[in-house]
Amino acid sequence: MIAVAERINGMFKDVKKAIQKKDAAVIQDLARKQTEAGAKFLDCNVGTAAADQQSAMQWLVEAIQSAVKTPIALDSQKIDVIKAGLAVCKNEVMINSCKADEDQLDKYMPLAVQHNASLVALTINAQGVPQNIDTRVEIAATIVSKAMEHGLPMDKLYIDPIILPVNCDQKQPDYLLQVMRQVKLLCDPPPHLIVGLSNISQGTSQRELINRVFLVMAMGAGLDAAILDVFDTEMMDDAITSDMLLNRMIYSDSFLKAARM
Amino acid sequence: MIAVAERINGMFKDVKKAIQKKDAAVIQDLARKQTEAGAKFLDCNVGTAAADQQSAMQWLVEAIQSAVKTPIALDSQKIDVIKAGLAVCKNEVMINSCKADEDQLDKYMPLAVQHNASLVALTINAQGVPQNIDTRVEIAATIVSKAMEHGLPMDKLYIDPIILPVNCDQKQPDYLLQVMRQVKLLCDPPPHLIVGLSNISQGTSQRELINRVFLVMAMGAGLDAAILDVFDTEMMDDAITSDMLLNRMIYSDSFLKAARM
Repeated sequence: MIAVAERINGMFKDVKKAIQKKDAAVIQDLARKQTEAGAKFLDCNVGTAAADQQSAMQWLVEAIQSAVKTPIALDSQKIDVIKAGLAVCKNEVMINSCKADEDQLDKYMPLAVQHNASLVALTINAQGVPQNIDTRVEIAATIVSKAMEHGLPMDKLYIDPIILPVNCDQKQPDYLLQVMRQVKLLCDPPPHLIVGLSNISQGTSQRELINRVFLVMAMGAGLDAAILDVFDTEMMDDAITSDMLLNRMIYSDSFLKAARM
Repeated sequence: MIAVAERINGMFKDVKKAIQKKDAAVIQDLARKQTEAGAKFLDCNVGTAAADQQSAMQWLVEAIQSAVKTPIALDSQKIDVIKAGLAVCKNEVMINSCKADEDQLDKYMPLAVQHNASLVALTINAQGVPQNIDTRVEIAATIVSKAMEHGLPMDKLYIDPIILPVNCDQKQPDYLLQVMRQVKLLCDPPPHLIVGLSNISQGTSQRELINRVFLVMAMGAGLDAAILDVFDTEMMDDAITSDMLLNRMIYSDSFLKAARM
């Protein structure tokens, strides 16, 4: 599982404060610890910490890069903030995220290709977030065909079918599993699948349990990547065990340790 | 998830001793505690505890029935031991198990129909345990068509696609998930799917972790039932959470508690 670590986000108080005070040590500490905990990408989101999001994003990226070489996932809904981040990124990078309207895809995909970046594309279009299986798969198919048109290789494309909280509509988690299986059949090789995991458990009484059980079920249905809390050791153990059971890593008696080396 | 509790089995020392000494209290205590822990069936296996397995099975069944009304899964490879158990079973009952050779199915299925019993049929035939996807699904299709021929309804049929230990052949767990999805498409309504869960982790260093992660992935792929250790609270929590995420039980903040009531 490609773990995209969620913690460097201006929505968290310590990160917000660090951005405002330009306290790089806080960010660097999170960057190092998340990397040690198994992060393959460090999500990097300014949130509401700064009026000038572009320079705040650049400061965040530079703070992270001076501590670790872990790839960064530039997380913003504004393309100018993404572009500002791309301008200073030295290593492998992910753009998180764009919607699936054609004009959006026509802007973000060439940008991703130009920077050899991965791109997270949400199955959201002008009509909003689809609540059913078929529309999500249709939008995913649009994303895939646009990627082919723009020369974005499938191993750089991450489709996010949009998790909704289980306590809002209990049919949605199973729909998501079915969407994932179908998206994996759209082409060969298929695109990656990614989710923002913690949304599944919003407002519930058992957030960690629900997060990790859905993660495992989704991995069985084809999920490759998730934006999540890499400090949740039990969940990371479950994800590693899923990878091992799906034959993505070799079993040894110390497979949990081996996966973290 | 239909939990078939594995503990009343002569392979365990305390149960073996209880059978030999006709100490019903030990068996009844296990029957009560497994029922409280969420067992929907109590597996009942004489093991090597007695030379006369038929009368030992009858003693076990009667001991259990005097303590709880939980349905019993009569577990033996010998049809005469199954028949002895059926003769004294008062409640709903499961026959565990038969192989998929035609002559076997032609013996066990009428027996199940006659006693209104559920039947576990293994995807094993005269050629042995298949190691690939297609042969397992082919054998499952034979089982399903035989059930239709004998008038055994699909909700009484439990197909066991045979788990092999992950450290023997790491391709097998994912094969199993694919088999499960395909078996669920064989007919509508489909047969139940069951596994003897602990086999997945035989000889590994992380038995409980591997058991519960595979259980969750398998439930996402259509697994309905498993023979397992209902005293493993973490695993039972995961199974309940899977049921909730698959919309098989209603979410409430106390869903873990509600599932155990």
